[in-house]
Amino acid sequence: MSTAIIPEVLEKAQRARQAAARLAELTRAEKDRILLAMADALETNAPAILEANARDVKNVQEKSGSAAPVDRLILNERRIAAMAEALRAIAAFTDPIGEVLGGWRVPNGLEITKVRVPLGVVGFIYESRPNVTVDAAGLCLKSGNAVILRGGSDAIQSNLCLVKTLTEAGAKVGLPEGAIQLIETTDRAAVGQLITMDRYIDVLIPRGGHDLIQRTKREATIPVIETGEGNCHVYVDASADLDQAEPLIVNAKCQRPTVCNAAETLLVHQDIAAEFLPRIGRALTAQGVELRACDRSLPYIEGARPATEEDWYKEYLALIMAVKVVDGVEDAITHISTYGTKHSEAILTRDLEAAQRFTHAVDAAVVYVNASTRFTDGGEFGLGAEIGISNQKLHARGPMGLAELTSYKYVVVGQGHVRG
Amino acid sequence: MSTAIIPEVLEKAQRARQAAARLAELTRAEKDRILLAMADALETNAPAILEANARDVKNVQEKSGSAAPVDRLILNERRIAAMAEALRAIAAFTDPIGEVLGGWRVPNGLEITKVRVPLGVVGFIYESRPNVTVDAAGLCLKSGNAVILRGGSDAIQSNLCLVKTLTEAGAKVGLPEGAIQLIETTDRAAVGQLITMDRYIDVLIPRGGHDLIQRTKREATIPVIETGEGNCHVYVDASADLDQAEPLIVNAKCQRPTVCNAAETLLVHQDIAAEFLPRIGRALTAQGVELRACDRSLPYIEGARPATEEDWYKEYLALIMAVKVVDGVEDAITHISTYGTKHSEAILTRDLEAAQRFTHAVDAAVVYVNASTRFTDGGEFGLGAEIGISNQKLHARGPMGLAELTSYKYVVVGQGHVRG
Repeated sequence: MSTAIIPEVLEKAQRARQAAARLAELTRAEKDRILLAMADALETNAPAILEANARDVKNVQEKSGSAAPVDRLILNERRIAAMAEALRAIAAFTDPIGEVLGGWRVPNGLEITKVRVPLGVVGFIYESRPNVTVDAAGLCLKSGNAVILRGGSDAIQSNLCLVKTLTEAGAKVGLPEGAIQLIETTDRAAVGQLITMDRYIDVLIPRGGHDLIQRTKREATIPVIETGEGNCHVYVDASADLDQAEPLIVNAKCQRPTVCNAAETLLVHQDIAAEFLPRIGRALTAQGVELRACDRSLPYIEGARPATEEDWYKEYLALIMAVKVVDGVEDAITHISTYGTKHSEAILTRDLEAAQRFTHAVDAAVVYVNASTRFTDGGEFGLGAEIGISNQKLHARGPMGLAELTSYKYVVVGQGHVRG
Repeated sequence: MSTAIIPEVLEKAQRARQAAARLAELTRAEKDRILLAMADALETNAPAILEANARDVKNVQEKSGSAAPVDRLILNERRIAAMAEALRAIAAFTDPIGEVLGGWRVPNGLEITKVRVPLGVVGFIYESRPNVTVDAAGLCLKSGNAVILRGGSDAIQSNLCLVKTLTEAGAKVGLPEGAIQLIETTDRAAVGQLITMDRYIDVLIPRGGHDLIQRTKREATIPVIETGEGNCHVYVDASADLDQAEPLIVNAKCQRPTVCNAAETLLVHQDIAAEFLPRIGRALTAQGVELRACDRSLPYIEGARPATEEDWYKEYLALIMAVKVVDGVEDAITHISTYGTKHSEAILTRDLEAAQRFTHAVDAAVVYVNASTRFTDGGEFGLGAEIGISNQKLHARGPMGLAELTSYKYVVVGQGHVRG
């Protein structure tokens, strides 16, 4: 490709590379002081942030021709305070950098120590929500990484103001120049350039829709951590506690249907289909869920429509749920391995063997026994804020917090050792 | 791209995917029994392996028009015995799969356990040496992964015979079909197809020359672990023990100059340049090393030629070494961060502060104090055989053994937990 270089992207990548060397050597005290100063600045600068955000909201409403509220985008005093709190929470976490992950002495006497180090430069490409900008900046700083942020164009004014607020406040207390940078152009070619700058950037984290992630995977020459798609299942075993199962499934489907850890397909053991399906059908329908049922479950669910083969593949991200009767735990495992995306999968059971079989055989980032799939989240896992949920097996799987933004190096000490 | 699908590649990828599910559940005893049977079969089947290898050697000699021996390719009884021993050594290692990497209980009572699991399907693309085929098959089996091997065309007859020997012996004692497969076609389009089959393959490990690795990075849609390029430096500090430094540098450069952990550039502190350079120049020249020296070092080294800017970037993989005088440890660090490939970097010093500064600031997979860069190796590190040396920061860095061929999953157990 011989497309013209966008100077902004190249310059920011080079600056990030330089900043990374300095960030790697900041102490925890230095990083925490910056994080706390950035948190305070968000609150102090709230009027300007809200004003910038109002411009984004107006632009989006004008583009869409609707005055409907844009919930994902809108900021208010409370949401800004929550962003500041997120930074303070990150400051309260132990520094991952410098942690000794292990060490040993080999037979010739060489002493090997494995030490946690930053990744270096993170390229983070994401969509609307402005709080993600602050979380990513805070997590990358604490883990000693420089970050290049490329947010969605809908939130550009908010992001510009947020990053300006963070970097100005940070610079006063030692934030290296180039540590936190936002790509300011909304030119889509900037993404194409960013994801091939393997000379300057160590890892890409795309967080957003299917197209963004597929494009990044296809075009990037930099290692990518794939986030996102979750076609999550809840399997109700014959032995499940049905009084527990009903609210749990409603939670997994309805508590926030637009996110990747919401359940999309319900699998029910054939022995309890006649008893449980009418009940769960009513409970879900009462929450406004549209049900798409297999041949065997259709007769038991009032108002359901027949599911097609495509339904088993769908990540609805909406109040829709597919329902299938399975012969048992093996059949459930086979269905999940055929149609799942290895994100979050749950079994509801009181049977130890079924629980063991499911947790061993289901290949997913998180496998639940008697809990809602909605818990797949950095905050819920106790990792602090998260930069995303990895959907691949390389490097990090599931919720990614501070430790997942690090690498390691080996320090090997000898006394003039040569290899024989 | 609308190139025709090569049925062999698709079928093997699908079979590998199916095998992966079964491999993930093999116990250590089952895997070790297979490894030992495969080791025995290599020895039993040595005559056929040698006969196949002789055909490869003949083909290569005919292609090159030279009867010169092809050391990397040639097998003999001793080398076959070494391959068998490598499998037995892998059997002796603890099973990485099922290891509990950590666990905790979150405030709401959910119990989270992080458990080591296989990556799934590994696509391994490599060049000549046939022993790599056996190492990769053994490491992937022990770590519960299916492997698709794509070796160099020079070794195709040897590899076919080796994989046939391994899989036939393995099948008799429980090796799942599709666990170890070799791409038999030498059509180069097979690589292009393999590296985009993200539906079936979880990770690619290319091991070979620059072009192979760059092509894989550029075209793959599957996560890649980049291996290889090592532009390694040895920095001799003013305080170094020069009697120790001389043989160490000769070892780092000459013990095996064609591999990635051999040293390529020597950096010498200005205060000892006049004393040390003539001596190390003689020692290296005596080993047949051609020296390319900076302006400041040139006067001290008999027979050296002037280095150009390109020399600082070069991974010679030959008996050539660049030499540069630096002002001190900071200058050495700057040179390494400008020209290095983050592989293996050494400081020779008796000064604690210099050692600390170097190990903190140099960003490389392995940073050595008073030891040869040649130790960057899975065997030397005690990891058992290695599948490669990672040159990236994501997932695995430096020598990759069994643990580096794994991922993890979270198993989360609740009592009907729903998210509030």
